[in-house]
Amino acid sequence: MGEKARGHMVIIGGAEDKSGDCAILREFIKLAGGRDSRLTVLSTASEDPRSGEVYRSLFVELGAAEVSVLAVRHRAEANQQQYVSVSRESSGIFFTGGDQLRITGVLGGSKLSRALLESYHGGAVIAGTSAGASAMSETMLVGGSDDATPNKEIIRMAPGLGFLKEVVVDQHFAQRGRIGRLLAVMAHNPYILGVGIDEDTAISVSPDEIFKVIGSGTVTVLDGKGVSHSNVSESGMNNPLALTDVRLHILPRGYGYHLGQRQVLMHINKEDPR
Amino acid sequence: MGEKARGHMVIIGGAEDKSGDCAILREFIKLAGGRDSRLTVLSTASEDPRSGEVYRSLFVELGAAEVSVLAVRHRAEANQQQYVSVSRESSGIFFTGGDQLRITGVLGGSKLSRALLESYHGGAVIAGTSAGASAMSETMLVGGSDDATPNKEIIRMAPGLGFLKEVVVDQHFAQRGRIGRLLAVMAHNPYILGVGIDEDTAISVSPDEIFKVIGSGTVTVLDGKGVSHSNVSESGMNNPLALTDVRLHILPRGYGYHLGQRQVLMHINKEDPR
Repeated sequence: MGEKARGHMVIIGGAEDKSGDCAILREFIKLAGGRDSRLTVLSTASEDPRSGEVYRSLFVELGAAEVSVLAVRHRAEANQQQYVSVSRESSGIFFTGGDQLRITGVLGGSKLSRALLESYHGGAVIAGTSAGASAMSETMLVGGSDDATPNKEIIRMAPGLGFLKEVVVDQHFAQRGRIGRLLAVMAHNPYILGVGIDEDTAISVSPDEIFKVIGSGTVTVLDGKGVSHSNVSESGMNNPLALTDVRLHILPRGYGYHLGQRQVLMHINKEDPR
Repeated sequence: MGEKARGHMVIIGGAEDKSGDCAILREFIKLAGGRDSRLTVLSTASEDPRSGEVYRSLFVELGAAEVSVLAVRHRAEANQQQYVSVSRESSGIFFTGGDQLRITGVLGGSKLSRALLESYHGGAVIAGTSAGASAMSETMLVGGSDDATPNKEIIRMAPGLGFLKEVVVDQHFAQRGRIGRLLAVMAHNPYILGVGIDEDTAISVSPDEIFKVIGSGTVTVLDGKGVSHSNVSESGMNNPLALTDVRLHILPRGYGYHLGQRQVLMHINKEDPR
């Protein structure tokens, strides 16, 4: 986490509830100011222009004061002053799903990207679902095989937007059998904390580096700090990896985690954003 | 592991190589005496009568001295003296895949089952693939959802054949995204060691409680000895489970594990059965 950040983050494992109590999306709006919230939906990840509109209607329905959709498609647009201004005036920014490489390919290093980071440091809420969740970290997973034996060949990594430091997020986690690929990331650098988020599940990260779990599934935390051995340097691309002494936690709603101290927090207040 | 056991076990995650170098099946034959081996294939798990024949041809081709197929289908047969005699004279017994409940439903408590355990204690090799692997433990997984958030509803357990104590084996592990269901087992009793075996991968267990990994994939070891919290007693059937401080190891070929001491062994001799 950046030293200066005062904003919250809501990082969603995809397929969040949009027709029931919408607990995750409500949390985002609440953190962004509820009835006073001015939200921006960034649908860059998706090629479908409707994906931003779906969230606009939902957020209006759930009580947001204002919602803008920025369907930024090209790098030139990501440097337009009007988009930068919209971002600066937002109390919450929501990244839709799609392809995380579109997010970083279009936004990476742009004026809009810098403005988003400044907004976050100034107190705005940054949220992302699916690809939008993956893009949050400094180094992100951009692809990899599901239901696969961990090896180097099954993953691709790239620089992300950098909101979340020292963490690699993976989404649709249980539903797509992705622990193999997140363990492969960790074998490359056990310093990284792996956070696998199930569908309809999210972590709500507060400025004090604590996240709480919300939604209907679980968050898998893979802590490599105690890893005693990894064969990543000597193994070939397709050779199965060895990795020993990973600390694993499965955390459902009501549980939290201190990212700085790498510690599970029990019975975290479900109503309090912290 | 039984105190008296002098035999080895070869527990296979299913889909083992049958057309290439057949490393796993060769290991079984080697442990059972190579050119002097007298093998029995138990195809009880499968409803397909050909499944035993496939292994008979393979084992003969790979150099076994004698191979019998026992397609035991009913409990009455499992008490027939002639089958018991075949089992007693075998240096290796191989359980095919299929449905582990057929194995225990037909063999459980029978004369044949007792004879198999005696053979194992006397030095015979016991091997099983897929369902035949699951059936090896005292408590076995008989079913459960793949690619699922860990909760109590996703698994079914039952008493197994009891060759392997204090361990629950799961198979087709990475390929079917089964870590959620094995973690759900562990949440029920963290005392259990969870061993998830990928396809074309096996553990070769020696009488001194050490296994080595063979084959092309990895073995995932989940050690719950240090688990600090599980919500299994207070959560509902469909509620996601919480489980903290599981120790996880990913072990490919060349690595081993001491089941008694719960310790990873590096660079275990690939050629030596131990």
